[in-house]
Amino acid sequence: MSNYKVKLQNIKAFAYDVDGIFTDGGVLATGDGDLLRTFDSKDGFGVRMTVLKGYPTAIVTGGSSESIRKRFRGIGIPDEDIYLTSRNKVPDFLDFCQRHNLEPSQVAFVGDDLPDIPILKICGLAVCPADAVAEVKEVCDYVSLYNGGKGCVRDLVEQVLKIHGNWVFDPVAYSG
Amino acid sequence: MSNYKVKLQNIKAFAYDVDGIFTDGGVLATGDGDLLRTFDSKDGFGVRMTVLKGYPTAIVTGGSSESIRKRFRGIGIPDEDIYLTSRNKVPDFLDFCQRHNLEPSQVAFVGDDLPDIPILKICGLAVCPADAVAEVKEVCDYVSLYNGGKGCVRDLVEQVLKIHGNWVFDPVAYSG
Amino acid sequence: MSNYKVKLQNIKAFAYDVDGIFTDGGVLATGDGDLLRTFDSKDGFGVRMTVLKGYPTAIVTGGSSESIRKRFRGIGIPDEDIYLTSRNKVPDFLDFCQRHNLEPSQVAFVGDDLPDIPILKICGLAVCPADAVAEVKEVCDYVSLYNGGKGCVRDLVEQVLKIHGNWVFDPVAYSG
Amino acid sequence: MSNYKVKLQNIKAFAYDVDGIFTDGGVLATGDGDLLRTFDSKDGFGVRMTVLKGYPTAIVTGGSSESIRKRFRGIGIPDEDIYLTSRNKVPDFLDFCQRHNLEPSQVAFVGDDLPDIPILKICGLAVCPADAVAEVKEVCDYVSLYNGGKGCVRDLVEQVLKIHGNWVFDPVAYSG
Repeated sequence: MSNYKVKLQNIKAFAYDVDGIFTDGGVLATGDGDLLRTFDSKDGFGVRMTVLKGYPTAIVTGGSSESIRKRFRGIGIPDEDIYLTSRNKVPDFLDFCQRHNLEPSQVAFVGDDLPDIPILKICGLAVCPADAVAEVKEVCDYVSLYNGGKGCVRDLVEQVLKIHGNWVFDPVAYSG
Repeated sequence: MSNYKVKLQNIKAFAYDVDGIFTDGGVLATGDGDLLRTFDSKDGFGVRMTVLKGYPTAIVTGGSSESIRKRFRGIGIPDEDIYLTSRNKVPDFLDFCQRHNLEPSQVAFVGDDLPDIPILKICGLAVCPADAVAEVKEVCDYVSLYNGGKGCVRDLVEQVLKIHGNWVFDPVAYSG
Repeated sequence: MSNYKVKLQNIKAFAYDVDGIFTDGGVLATGDGDLLRTFDSKDGFGVRMTVLKGYPTAIVTGGSSESIRKRFRGIGIPDEDIYLTSRNKVPDFLDFCQRHNLEPSQVAFVGDDLPDIPILKICGLAVCPADAVAEVKEVCDYVSLYNGGKGCVRDLVEQVLKIHGNWVFDPVAYSG
Repeated sequence: MSNYKVKLQNIKAFAYDVDGIFTDGGVLATGDGDLLRTFDSKDGFGVRMTVLKGYPTAIVTGGSSESIRKRFRGIGIPDEDIYLTSRNKVPDFLDFCQRHNLEPSQVAFVGDDLPDIPILKICGLAVCPADAVAEVKEVCDYVSLYNGGKGCVRDLVEQVLKIHGNWVFDPVAYSG
């Protein structure tokens, strides 16, 4: 079995940067100074599946908008696992691991730009979208064929859940 | 006549998922926790044509934003045919059929992701956009050449209305 | 000189549909039921140039959002030349012509969908974006190489102003 | 060394138009008459790097929305270097140079449309995105491979900071 498949199989949790991962990098600047993002509904369905199956999931972003927290709260991620205004990201990532009794090697992380590299170097599966910056691609285990906001998150969670036999949709559980 | 054309001819009503069908899947997360969608004006014109010609039309979506209801109300769909927060979708679809005295086999449904599959399996014409997930494409009668939010709805309604001789635009009726 | 160039030269005014012309057809549905559009800044510059050079300019749209009026007011189009909720469009187009003492044959019109066809058939230069519906393309004198919201308006106004020797940018006049 | 590399090396500051540079040219027209832009997070990171390294940075835009000021204030550009409603742009550009004791030849400027040409002709490095208008491309030293809002700003700042040995990311300084 390839090293990549072994890593997929060992994943027990997910952590994500937001801009350029769940989005195409665009932020809509509003009149009151907020920055709003457009998320993808297929990514949202994928992450909700991982949450329903019991995988701890963290958001580690430099963004500060409460709209980010509300989006991920709506998908089922608890507030304490959503790290906003995280610019020096490693301590937040390690806090998430510690609170969930996880080794960094058990967590997949998805990033796309320089501030994500320190986590990508210590996590269990380093993933980036097709349109990540060159320095990020160099340190990743897996470069998705999909761009940020265009399926890269769904791509990852489907792979992990399928290898674990967890990619099974139950409408009743889902609607519960 | 092909099986597909027979199915087109038998269609008496339409039902749709929203995200990835009327949109490219993007949802704009606002500061107050709402999720807003960008709809397509050519799709909107097509659906308004079906409504003016008297085809019952349902919206069956997991989304909860009142903005969805207002969008489709503006096109002429009555509130009782707009099912929001529908995650286990079949009962809502059957409720729509029953209220309009329709057999499921007389209704075309458009979906793009796993929660749509149970309806796609029982409706009269199973349709998806070009960018639906693989599992959905497998169960569809027709995979549009157009992506969600980029013409797949217009594509379907034009085909049905043309085969019925109903694709006739009357500016005066339209403006009435 | 080609018939098309003659028509360009005779143009004394412009009229436009909005959705699919100044936009890619997308409308953002807000929580309070409004529909918001994304306009293009290069198109905006082009239209402002025609206004500064004295060409009467009309907006004839089925849309009802006051955001449309405010957008075009900001470019310099007077309120009485902005026709909102115009579904049977010809009477509004003729009202614009009459108030400005123009023959329909002196006005270029840009449309993209069935409700625009009646004006396209009577105006002086019938124009559509590359992604107009087939029925519209059939009745147009000129199909722009650019899509709606992606340069089709700029394309038209540059051609007319250049043939008239009016495509001359003066920073001081522009800022005045 | 090429003339272009000499120019890169001499750059001590940056100035930018906004629409079509930091954005794809789209402006979202809101109900209260504001025009909102979607900015790119990778561009934002790049500009923040130049600010942290001490390069004076100006925004010179015809736009008037306070949302622009708030976006760039959030990246670290002081208010006095953000010129809104600048239509005759050269005086604003020269004001920026004077206040920072810069020669125009020491400042890189990025523009995309006719109002930017007067600055592009006097600045130290004239840059435009791949989708700038033809007249702008003609007067530029460098046409980025990237479109406005899709990486053209990041492209420029990476080139300048790398040639100066300043493209070094320090998470602690960045988060400070």
